Amino acid sequence: MIRVVRGGITTPQGFLAAAVNCGIKRSGYDDLALLVSERPCACAGVFTKNKMRSGSVELCERRLKKGLAQAVIVNSGNANCCVGKREIRDAEAITALTARKIGLGKEETLMVSTGIIGRSLPLDRIKKKIVSLTGTLSRKNALRFAKAIMTTDTVQKEIAVRFKVAGQEVTLGGSAKGSGMICPDMATMLAFFTTDAAIERGALKAAFKESVDSSFNRITVDGDMSTNDSAIIFANGLAGNKMIRRGSTGYYRFLEALRFVTKVLARKIVLDGEGATRFIEIVVKGAKSQSDAEGIARHVADSNLVKTMIAGGDPNWGRVASSIGSSGIDIKKDRVSIYFGNEPVMRNGSGVKVSRKKLVSMFKKKEIIINIDLRSGGSSSRIWTCDLTEGYVRINAEYET
Amino acid sequence: MIRVVRGGITTPQGFLAAAVNCGIKRSGYDDLALLVSERPCACAGVFTKNKMRSGSVELCERRLKKGLAQAVIVNSGNANCCVGKREIRDAEAITALTARKIGLGKEETLMVSTGIIGRSLPLDRIKKKIVSLTGTLSRKNALRFAKAIMTTDTVQKEIAVRFKVAGQEVTLGGSAKGSGMICPDMATMLAFFTTDAAIERGALKAAFKESVDSSFNRITVDGDMSTNDSAIIFANGLAGNKMIRRGSTGYYRFLEALRFVTKVLARKIVLDGEGATRFIEIVVKGAKSQSDAEGIARHVADSNLVKTMIAGGDPNWGRVASSIGSSGIDIKKDRVSIYFGNEPVMRNGSGVKVSRKKLVSMFKKKEIIINIDLRSGGSSSRIWTCDLTEGYVRINAEYET
Repeated sequence: MIRVVRGGITTPQGFLAAAVNCGIKRSGYDDLALLVSERPCACAGVFTKNKMRSGSVELCERRLKKGLAQAVIVNSGNANCCVGKREIRDAEAITALTARKIGLGKEETLMVSTGIIGRSLPLDRIKKKIVSLTGTLSRKNALRFAKAIMTTDTVQKEIAVRFKVAGQEVTLGGSAKGSGMICPDMATMLAFFTTDAAIERGALKAAFKESVDSSFNRITVDGDMSTNDSAIIFANGLAGNKMIRRGSTGYYRFLEALRFVTKVLARKIVLDGEGATRFIEIVVKGAKSQSDAEGIARHVADSNLVKTMIAGGDPNWGRVASSIGSSGIDIKKDRVSIYFGNEPVMRNGSGVKVSRKKLVSMFKKKEIIINIDLRSGGSSSRIWTCDLTEGYVRINAEYET
Repeated sequence: MIRVVRGGITTPQGFLAAAVNCGIKRSGYDDLALLVSERPCACAGVFTKNKMRSGSVELCERRLKKGLAQAVIVNSGNANCCVGKREIRDAEAITALTARKIGLGKEETLMVSTGIIGRSLPLDRIKKKIVSLTGTLSRKNALRFAKAIMTTDTVQKEIAVRFKVAGQEVTLGGSAKGSGMICPDMATMLAFFTTDAAIERGALKAAFKESVDSSFNRITVDGDMSTNDSAIIFANGLAGNKMIRRGSTGYYRFLEALRFVTKVLARKIVLDGEGATRFIEIVVKGAKSQSDAEGIARHVADSNLVKTMIAGGDPNWGRVASSIGSSGIDIKKDRVSIYFGNEPVMRNGSGVKVSRKKLVSMFKKKEIIINIDLRSGGSSSRIWTCDLTEGYVRINAEYET
């Protein structure tokens, strides 16, 4: 059983957080945050595949090769990206100073950045604030951390759960930011997880990869993966459970809990999408392969015509049919069926007579499921997205660099 | 020399057109149009690759295998798509009746449809109108034809040019519809061309394919290729020039003119894009392969973040950099440069100091060119698109089926 409890990343034992404003966000809100474990941790990360990615991401990947880390410093408002060799140099200087102040090796300290691309970090101002940042580390600062990592988000996103592994209660916490699939340059997806479970490094890595694949990698980022997307998990073993190894019963317990918390946070990101008014799930089944299923689901989810149709509350399924056909993936036209919820609207490539009133009222709901059956094989996939509204365009057109 | 003259698809010798309202468009505007050559024609077509495509498209492809056709009937307001086996049956019945009335074989008669998906054609009403349609064929109806094929277009799009082939003057006309890259289900791209040049079938097919590839296939259709996109050219030989064969001087003259008219009409489609206020050209050079160049150009052109940035007049080049990196195509981060017009904004992966005022005034222009240099090879590509405005979302969300 997985029990949701109040809290976030400092709810598991032995984790501390802090946040300050160092002047990147002109609003004066916190823009520099720190998460530290009191004990050494197994650590795993999943990062953006964007080829123009930030130096901060490169530093994390390098340092996580051994699967060990104990702290992460996060700045918001500046992506530390497209500024040349400085990116890595600045990330090294900032993590080195942070590590020294908290008595760690710099190799155990990670850095994550989110914000505008193409401006160098204000290194001196950040360095000056690291003292007060490390000096105010506390278990009470989870919410402050969650808020400090926000950019265009409208609400902080955190969760904590408790569950048992071989009779021993362990805790798992998480905190994420991101304005959804509709992910602008200012709205990188970041997610941090902490647990006091004792888990072997390889097992942590495998469980985290699988969980991220079935949660954050299910939400479409508008085809525009950010330069800075990062998800990191720390496990410090303070719960004292028997070490979790890959393939054990405990592993599957842990995986189940991790899948749960990553899914909750991924959904929160979609629901906080810029201008979004509706949560959309696209389910594709009957595909020849997993990649066909996912390709079609993503193509439909990224279609501006499908997204605006849902914003407008019009059950115009022809837009879904056209989008399925234009994905570049081979399908048999006369086998494809489309359902809005459980209501068939097209069967075997041909429109179905259905009450328009019924569909319109379904489209008034906050959550809409579009089921697509290709009847060509046994593979399936699902993708989460949100609608495309005038609000989205306004936010992204009026936003000034 | 290519001389633009007043006119459209009936300017070349021996072509007649007609249009009527048969009740598909409730507005009462013409929605059924006919184009006929008085003489047999070499004919070539390029059609959508959408797998859910219309029965009308299937019929055209089948009938054009031999490269001969003499007439095309076009209906707007109904896509004849996703209605099952009726699609082909209806298209066959309509073309058979039309062919009989004008004294042609049905195999020489094509059909093209555009409009809403999933509703069967009003076969009886169309049949009833075919008599008055065929009875009013005239050289004077080019404009009426151009208007009858429109759906969400705001202006008709036509052109005619004259040029010489081996001393003999020939004429080429064209008419297109489509609301641009931002191509909704109601805004299929259709284009019709006529010429009195005498040209061998294989040469016509090759020249048309090359011209469509460098014009209509350069404008992005929002990733959402329609179920009905069709481009067709008829050549009846009435100009009396020496038969144009592939590879001859005359062939390149003809190709040059055809490239010109297809480009003009493709640009008109982009400029009439739903809600569009700006014409954007994305040029990628220095790519390892043609497909890499085109893949990146399309990915940037389809990015909602880039499109809204231009709508908002904000020269935020980080969105372009991020989009280049997220295309899935391999690039070297520290070799990529971006220019707005001729102004460098990122060089070798690093931002360039540039006057914001200068860029902002550049972004006020109607036409914006984004140049991307990957410095990884010798291939290049260009794609045309338009900005994404609140107007686009309004049109597509408020549109009711």
